[in-house]
Amino acid sequence: MALIGVGLMGGSLGLAVKRAKLVGEIVGYSPEPAALKRAVQRGAIDRFTKSAPEAVREADLVVLATPAGSFEPLVKECASSFKLGAILTDVGSVKGALVGRIDALLPPHVVYLPAHPLAGRERSGIDASSATLFDGCRCLITPGHRNNQIGRPDALKRLTGLWEKIGATVTTLDPFEHDRYLALVSHLPHLVAYALVNCAMDAAKEAPGLLGFSAGGFRDFTRIAASSPEMWRDICLENRAEILSALARYQSVLERYRRLIEAGDGASLEAAFRDARRVKEELRSA
Amino acid sequence: MALIGVGLMGGSLGLAVKRAKLVGEIVGYSPEPAALKRAVQRGAIDRFTKSAPEAVREADLVVLATPAGSFEPLVKECASSFKLGAILTDVGSVKGALVGRIDALLPPHVVYLPAHPLAGRERSGIDASSATLFDGCRCLITPGHRNNQIGRPDALKRLTGLWEKIGATVTTLDPFEHDRYLALVSHLPHLVAYALVNCAMDAAKEAPGLLGFSAGGFRDFTRIAASSPEMWRDICLENRAEILSALARYQSVLERYRRLIEAGDGASLEAAFRDARRVKEELRSA
Repeated sequence: MALIGVGLMGGSLGLAVKRAKLVGEIVGYSPEPAALKRAVQRGAIDRFTKSAPEAVREADLVVLATPAGSFEPLVKECASSFKLGAILTDVGSVKGALVGRIDALLPPHVVYLPAHPLAGRERSGIDASSATLFDGCRCLITPGHRNNQIGRPDALKRLTGLWEKIGATVTTLDPFEHDRYLALVSHLPHLVAYALVNCAMDAAKEAPGLLGFSAGGFRDFTRIAASSPEMWRDICLENRAEILSALARYQSVLERYRRLIEAGDGASLEAAFRDARRVKEELRSA
Repeated sequence: MALIGVGLMGGSLGLAVKRAKLVGEIVGYSPEPAALKRAVQRGAIDRFTKSAPEAVREADLVVLATPAGSFEPLVKECASSFKLGAILTDVGSVKGALVGRIDALLPPHVVYLPAHPLAGRERSGIDASSATLFDGCRCLITPGHRNNQIGRPDALKRLTGLWEKIGATVTTLDPFEHDRYLALVSHLPHLVAYALVNCAMDAAKEAPGLLGFSAGGFRDFTRIAASSPEMWRDICLENRAEILSALARYQSVLERYRRLIEAGDGASLEAAFRDARRVKEELRSA
C-alpha cells in the first residue's frame, strides 16, 4: 500500500490498517519530509520515498491523503507509475467533478474509487493521528461514471472490506450527491465556525478582554475552527457551487433571525429555536 | 435562601450550595410544580411554596433562576415580601438595562447584585443539574448604578464568597459592558448554531437522508442548539441592540467569505482560516 500524505487522516489510516494487519508494506510519500520521519516512528508507514511515483510503483492500493487541491497534480505525476490493476483511492472531503477529472488522468488499468470517511478531530498532522480514528465512523465511497471498467466490482469489494475491518460502515454514493449533502452538513458548518471565530477576534481588537468571557458555545466553535486551513481552502474551491448554495440558504435563515430580533418577535424566535432542538432526536434515529 | 426557578442553573446552584453547606434551608418556587417535586427529590431545595412571595419572605438571599423575561414580573410580585436587608441575585445571561429596571422595582432595603456564571450544558431542566456545574467556571457579578446603597459592599463580599466556595472565579463588571461582550462570545454563537441547524433541517425536507451524513462539526452545533428555547428567546429580546450589532458584524464576515469563494480566492480564504486557528492559543493565555 502507498500512502500519499501522512497527516491526521493518512497517518490514522496507516496505523489502523497496520494494526488490523490488512496489508503488507506501507510506503509513504509527503511533500513534508519531517512528517514522513514521524510517520515511520509512529508506525503509520514502513518506509518512505523521495517522490510520489516511487511510492506508488509497487502498490496494489494507493491512498491520496493530502489536501484535495493536490490530487490532480499528484495523479498526473504518478499516471505512468501505477502497477497494473492498482486501486487508487483517497480520503478527501470533496468528490463531485473532481472524480471525473481524476478518472480521465488515469491509465485504463487503474481503478479509482474515491472515499470519504466521516471522521476527524480538532488537531491535524501525524501527531494527532490514531489507529482508532475510523472506529464506528461512516465511510462514503463515491465511484465515478467511467463505464464497465474491468476489475472495478472486485476493487469495490476489496476497499469496502478494508474500511469495514477498521471499524467503518460503508455507503456507496454518487460523487455529486456527496458534495451536495456534505456542503450542508460539513462544509457549511466549518465555514460558519471559522467566520464566527474571525468575527470575535476582530471585535477583540477593540475589547482586549473579550475572549476571556467565552464559555461553552464559543469554545466549541474554536475547536471546529482549528481544522486544517489548507484542507478547507481546497474544499471551498472544489465544492464552490454547492457551498455557495448552502451558504445562501444559511444567510437567509440568519437574515430572518435578524428581522425577528429587530421586530422583537419572541414567539417566532422561540419556535425556530424549539425546531432546531428537535434535530438531536432525528440524528439519533438517522 | 430562596430559589426562584429550579432548572439546570437553579437546580445546580441549590445542589452546589447544599453540598458546601453554605446556607440553611433552601425554599424553592417555580411556575412548574413537577420541577419543584423533582428538585426536592434531588436535594436541590428543602421545600417549596405555591407562590414566589411566600418563598422569598424569610430568605437572606434570593436567587432568580428563571428565563430573564420573567425577572421583572417576579420582582414586582415579591417587592413587598423581601426580608429587611435581603440580597437579591440571579443567574441570568443578560444584564444591561434590565439591571436598572429591577433596581427601580426594589424597596431601598434590598440589595440587587446580578450574577452570570459562565457555565451550562446541552440539556436543560432539573434532571440535568449537577452540584459541580460551576466548578472551575467564571462568574460575572454586574452591580447596577444605584448610589451608595447601605449594605451593598457587604452583600457583594458575601455573594462573591458563595460563588468562590462552589468553585467559581468572580469578576465584577459593568452590566452594559457585560452585554456587549456576551453578545459576541455567547449570544451570537448560539444564534449561529440555531440558524445552522434550522438551515440543515430545512434542506433535509428535500433530501431525507441528509442528516445521516453529518459528522463532528455539525453534531457540535446540534449540542449548542439544544439549549433552552425560552431562555434564548428572552436573551434575544433583552439584549437586542448588542446582538443586532454582533450579528451585523458576523453577517459581513460571512458575506466576505461568500465573495472569496465565488471569486475562487484560495489564498485569502486560507489566511482567514489560519487566523481563526490562532484563537485557541489566545484562549489558553486569556
